[in-house]
Amino acid sequence: MYGYASNKDDYGKRLRRIEGQIRGLQRMVEDDAYCIDILTQVAAATKALQSVAIGLVSEHMRHCVAQAIEQGGPEADAKIKEASEAIARLVRS
Amino acid sequence: MYGYASNKDDYGKRLRRIEGQIRGLQRMVEDDAYCIDILTQVAAATKALQSVAIGLVSEHMRHCVAQAIEQGGPEADAKIKEASEAIARLVRS
Amino acid sequence: MYGYASNKDDYGKRLRRIEGQIRGLQRMVEDDAYCIDILTQVAAATKALQSVAIGLVSEHMRHCVAQAIEQGGPEADAKIKEASEAIARLVRS
Amino acid sequence: MYGYASNKDDYGKRLRRIEGQIRGLQRMVEDDAYCIDILTQVAAATKALQSVAIGLVSEHMRHCVAQAIEQGGPEADAKIKEASEAIARLVRS
Repeated sequence: MYGYASNKDDYGKRLRRIEGQIRGLQRMVEDDAYCIDILTQVAAATKALQSVAIGLVSEHMRHCVAQAIEQGGPEADAKIKEASEAIARLVRS
Repeated sequence: MYGYASNKDDYGKRLRRIEGQIRGLQRMVEDDAYCIDILTQVAAATKALQSVAIGLVSEHMRHCVAQAIEQGGPEADAKIKEASEAIARLVRS
Repeated sequence: MYGYASNKDDYGKRLRRIEGQIRGLQRMVEDDAYCIDILTQVAAATKALQSVAIGLVSEHMRHCVAQAIEQGGPEADAKIKEASEAIARLVRS
Repeated sequence: MYGYASNKDDYGKRLRRIEGQIRGLQRMVEDDAYCIDILTQVAAATKALQSVAIGLVSEHMRHCVAQAIEQGGPEADAKIKEASEAIARLVRS
């Protein structure tokens, strides 16, 4: 059971909404929509995805990382390192 | 006919692949996948979306903006301003 | 003479302000400021730098790229390609 | 004493290097350097700043956040919330 477990339904709903945004983008391309309008939608979908990522990082720290620290030992350091690397990937993407 | 017209199929294909990534994320959440693995996939989908955006901006400049500049007049300035604003939204997203 | 020439003083001023922010960060580290306060200042300096970049891209399109397109020839394509690549580096940074 | 304390000299050195990059940008603008070359340097300075931020977040989790969790109580939750918000600002900048 991971950090986001208690919000599984919420994350599922947000991802289905993003899927809908991506399908909307496919229709826009199909219908020859104006480039700038497509770009506006791409930026909106990107923000929605980043927001999911920020939520997941936060839950992960609150649960998985916190638990590892409470239990102590080398596992705690490994969890913090892993989380730091995931955050670095997000900041750089 | 807009800038990306000659690559419509390519953009459609890339967006369908991103849709597949988003559906994969839904399954991961459903199956209680590990938070960090989900985050890695979110970062990959975000990069793919940004890459679509960069391609669209480039085609837009090559076609719509270039055409407006060739024709001259106030329309050219308006197109450049519009493109600059779209780029600013991308850089900030 | 490049795109930003008429705003040289403005860009100089903005960059000196960013230099001041970076020196402020050095003092914060020196004085053992709280990590989160330092991070807030790093985010502010990053935003200021990105805003300079967005301004430069916009001036570059309005002047250098527009001029190359007006003159036509292979130089125009090369300028658009070069600008697209610079935008891609910004979006990915 | 905060998370980055044991690396204070390293952070000071990195920030002085970034200050040098910003001063280099001022000279480029002063000397009418080509827009795209300036943009390349802006992207490099932005990456260097983000890399400092990622390092600070990582040290902050390893020290301040971990310590708060070990001690338990409401302070731990507050620290995790504060770190999550700082990470969100970074991802969005």
